[in-house]
Amino acid sequence: MTKKPLILVTNDDSIVAPGIRTLIEIANEFGEVYVVAPDGPQSGKGHAITLDQSLRCTEVPSDGPQKEFKVSGTPADCVKMAINVVMPRRPDLILSGINHGSNASVNVIYSGTMSAAVEGALERVQAIGFSLCEFSWEASFEAAIPYVRKVIKATLDNGLPSGVCLNVNIPENDKAPYKGMRVCRQAIGNWVEEFDSRIDPSGRPYYWLTGKYENYDQGDDTDIAALEQGYISIVPITVDLTAHHAVATLNQWNFEK
Amino acid sequence: MTKKPLILVTNDDSIVAPGIRTLIEIANEFGEVYVVAPDGPQSGKGHAITLDQSLRCTEVPSDGPQKEFKVSGTPADCVKMAINVVMPRRPDLILSGINHGSNASVNVIYSGTMSAAVEGALERVQAIGFSLCEFSWEASFEAAIPYVRKVIKATLDNGLPSGVCLNVNIPENDKAPYKGMRVCRQAIGNWVEEFDSRIDPSGRPYYWLTGKYENYDQGDDTDIAALEQGYISIVPITVDLTAHHAVATLNQWNFEK
Repeated sequence: MTKKPLILVTNDDSIVAPGIRTLIEIANEFGEVYVVAPDGPQSGKGHAITLDQSLRCTEVPSDGPQKEFKVSGTPADCVKMAINVVMPRRPDLILSGINHGSNASVNVIYSGTMSAAVEGALERVQAIGFSLCEFSWEASFEAAIPYVRKVIKATLDNGLPSGVCLNVNIPENDKAPYKGMRVCRQAIGNWVEEFDSRIDPSGRPYYWLTGKYENYDQGDDTDIAALEQGYISIVPITVDLTAHHAVATLNQWNFEK
Repeated sequence: MTKKPLILVTNDDSIVAPGIRTLIEIANEFGEVYVVAPDGPQSGKGHAITLDQSLRCTEVPSDGPQKEFKVSGTPADCVKMAINVVMPRRPDLILSGINHGSNASVNVIYSGTMSAAVEGALERVQAIGFSLCEFSWEASFEAAIPYVRKVIKATLDNGLPSGVCLNVNIPENDKAPYKGMRVCRQAIGNWVEEFDSRIDPSGRPYYWLTGKYENYDQGDDTDIAALEQGYISIVPITVDLTAHHAVATLNQWNFEK
């Protein structure tokens, strides 16, 4: 790339989260940076967009060369707002994260972090979502930083296929020093939900969603396997949700019976 | 199936929407029906789940043999609540919709209706999302009903592959009588967004998300093509978002350069 790339940084943990502050610092090494991120936590918002309310977008003070804007919406809203309202031209790269918590396996479907990357892929902009497999707000990103740099550099050097973004997950800090990086597929698994049922002061029931991830996939080529073994997992994610293998099966069904 | 199937009906337009009332009537022909649906509109909520608030789940009066519950959350929350709290056993089939508006092409990614079906696929329960390509609350579902029946019957007869659900879209009423049904792939396209920028009474700007769908796909095997030609489109949707074709490409990248 001859000129400095224009980079959008966003996330789902809000513009003040330590993870995005780390990612902004790294992004500044690679190009001209705009931060357009939610003004509050948006975890678990999937690919939600805001249709029933209007949005605010406000420039906020920056602690570096980047320009920063907070948006009263979801990560997908932030990407749309950045591309259509805030940025001087379409970005060359979208970076989302670094998320506080894993987005491996089926978490990708619920993830606000990854929805911003998927929104980039829909817009045909290169996009990468980064997640550290630690929920704590205080978790250290130090061991992750060199790998985040490598993935950004390789993406700018090689270019992603159209309609594809990257889901990059980084193991917990107790697995550092990490063994390296591995290109993977999304592990098959699911959240086994339980609801924590409580009674409010008026005697009426209410429920908190809780649950535990169960891995159904014994493959060594999955993101879950890579993370367990101390590797950074890199899964290319598509915006085409068609189950292509099932098209032929369904064509054999008799719908008129 | 020897015994009467247990069917969950949900949607994203809320439990009072004409589309779900139509779908409940059809579901009652096929099995024992539980309705667990949002207590208010949830359009565009993608695969959001509610982690930052607790949920209410309240039984409401039913106008037929079905049991009905409203939930203060998203369509994905409703499916989790139905399976884990409300229903006597895991459902045999999840039906979502009938949505007021198209969920063809990339709309599947933003769709609350389809997130309920995808949640079913994650739970390894057969699931179908139905959408009529008309936004109006008053739109007639009459022409759609025989096709909704056919798709439900074929799904119960044949069984969907594991981890796959169906995205069924029905053309506008002015295309009825419909030409039939077609198994398709998701068309490649995108929303070209514009923001309607306004100034509030205090002089501060705010934004409404608007936009227009652009189809980039000339294939005759897409959902958009089928709908334009007056066919019901049936796209099998996978919960595996891996861009499998890109894994080999990425393995050729040098991440250590």
